[in-house]
Amino acid sequence: MSGESRQWTAALAVIGDEILSGRTQDKNVAQVATWLNDHGIRLSEVRIVPDDIRRIADTVNELRAAHDYVFTTGGIGPTHDDITVDAMAAAFGVEVVVHPGARKILEDYYRDRPGALTEARLRMARVPEGAELIPNPSSGAPGVRMGNVYILAGVPYIAASMLEALTGKLEGGRPVVSVTIGARAAESDVADLLRDTEAANPGVAIGSYPFFKDGGYGANFVIRSEDGELARRIGDELSARLREAGYDPADGGL
Amino acid sequence: MSGESRQWTAALAVIGDEILSGRTQDKNVAQVATWLNDHGIRLSEVRIVPDDIRRIADTVNELRAAHDYVFTTGGIGPTHDDITVDAMAAAFGVEVVVHPGARKILEDYYRDRPGALTEARLRMARVPEGAELIPNPSSGAPGVRMGNVYILAGVPYIAASMLEALTGKLEGGRPVVSVTIGARAAESDVADLLRDTEAANPGVAIGSYPFFKDGGYGANFVIRSEDGELARRIGDELSARLREAGYDPADGGL
Repeated sequence: MSGESRQWTAALAVIGDEILSGRTQDKNVAQVATWLNDHGIRLSEVRIVPDDIRRIADTVNELRAAHDYVFTTGGIGPTHDDITVDAMAAAFGVEVVVHPGARKILEDYYRDRPGALTEARLRMARVPEGAELIPNPSSGAPGVRMGNVYILAGVPYIAASMLEALTGKLEGGRPVVSVTIGARAAESDVADLLRDTEAANPGVAIGSYPFFKDGGYGANFVIRSEDGELARRIGDELSARLREAGYDPADGGL
Repeated sequence: MSGESRQWTAALAVIGDEILSGRTQDKNVAQVATWLNDHGIRLSEVRIVPDDIRRIADTVNELRAAHDYVFTTGGIGPTHDDITVDAMAAAFGVEVVVHPGARKILEDYYRDRPGALTEARLRMARVPEGAELIPNPSSGAPGVRMGNVYILAGVPYIAASMLEALTGKLEGGRPVVSVTIGARAAESDVADLLRDTEAANPGVAIGSYPFFKDGGYGANFVIRSEDGELARRIGDELSARLREAGYDPADGGL
């Protein structure tokens, strides 16, 4: 890791009783993490919080003070349990207002759709005062940016399309490059080899992730660094050491 | 919700760079949440934190002060990046020691396996001083209980088997009962109906979760209460209201 490169960090607040109850499997952590890394921003922390205005507001206030960026997913639909905008207004100490641009987007979107722009749908034009919109190419109702907080939908494909709309618009540093080497090894048998390789190479982190599949065990070793060349060199070195130890390492993992 | 029943809460700390990098899709939040609910314990908060001793220790200290129980997943294997036990010892201000019971389990487990009980494997017998073991029926190396903190493996099937071993051993209150009603309705078209139903029934929370599948949209409405009879009654009431509004509600959801 170059000492000169500033590390940009982000936090994600996943909002929703349905995740905390176990009913819904979250899909947003992984997609937000991957998108952030492409922008050279490290996802440093995730919090999953219930549908509770105070809890959401407190969480966002802690996170936005500690990180360059905060993302949230969930709670921006038309129903009574969609309270993210209200929580964000509470966090920033501002009023909730109807955003004229969002109103226009919804008017256009619902013009030819059954039911037109009802009061409930207009709820999706509400923003904390002073916020900007994040385009939503997939279902009309926009996301919201307020300061360094980016409020996305909870439905994964809608969140993805909002991220798509933000692509290239956030300042970051160097992406972390990952090199993965897999081997049919018990990780406990190569633990020393891994530790020595990491210790000898400042600026890289090596993770070891065991698996059991196709009737056998093994592990993937992930070398991470902001210096892509370094990561690849350490990957080659680790492969060589594994080969010496009698394994048949697989570039790209198993 | 009965005013008399004490609400038991838990927090989960998911430990691991591989989740925050987007490489690995977490599966533990949902399974821990479901298991806790069966015990009448509400999963109130989740934090996903990186492989960093200080960050893990601080997070656990915040969570264990705020909740009846804390669970952690990840970072208890044999390699250098498995630092959860060290972080926990730092959090509790105690030493790391080799637990004789854990050592015995590992000796037995590796007696007839190739490589035997190496130094690296013995790492999995380390616990914060004063901890108890959580049996691991699936792969030998035990989990660890320290105060109100339950340290589980990160590999989901191993975490599941540790939960299995803990089943019935934690004190809790009444489980939350969920009743799900699905309808081929735009949630914005039934928003008022949902809001009114929730507002008229203290002790129930109604969540609305839209979907788009089989070429059409719809939503599932989840009624949650510690009073199972009440949840079922409100489910019936909501179904009746949806039918009046021209929909064909599905018990159990769509």
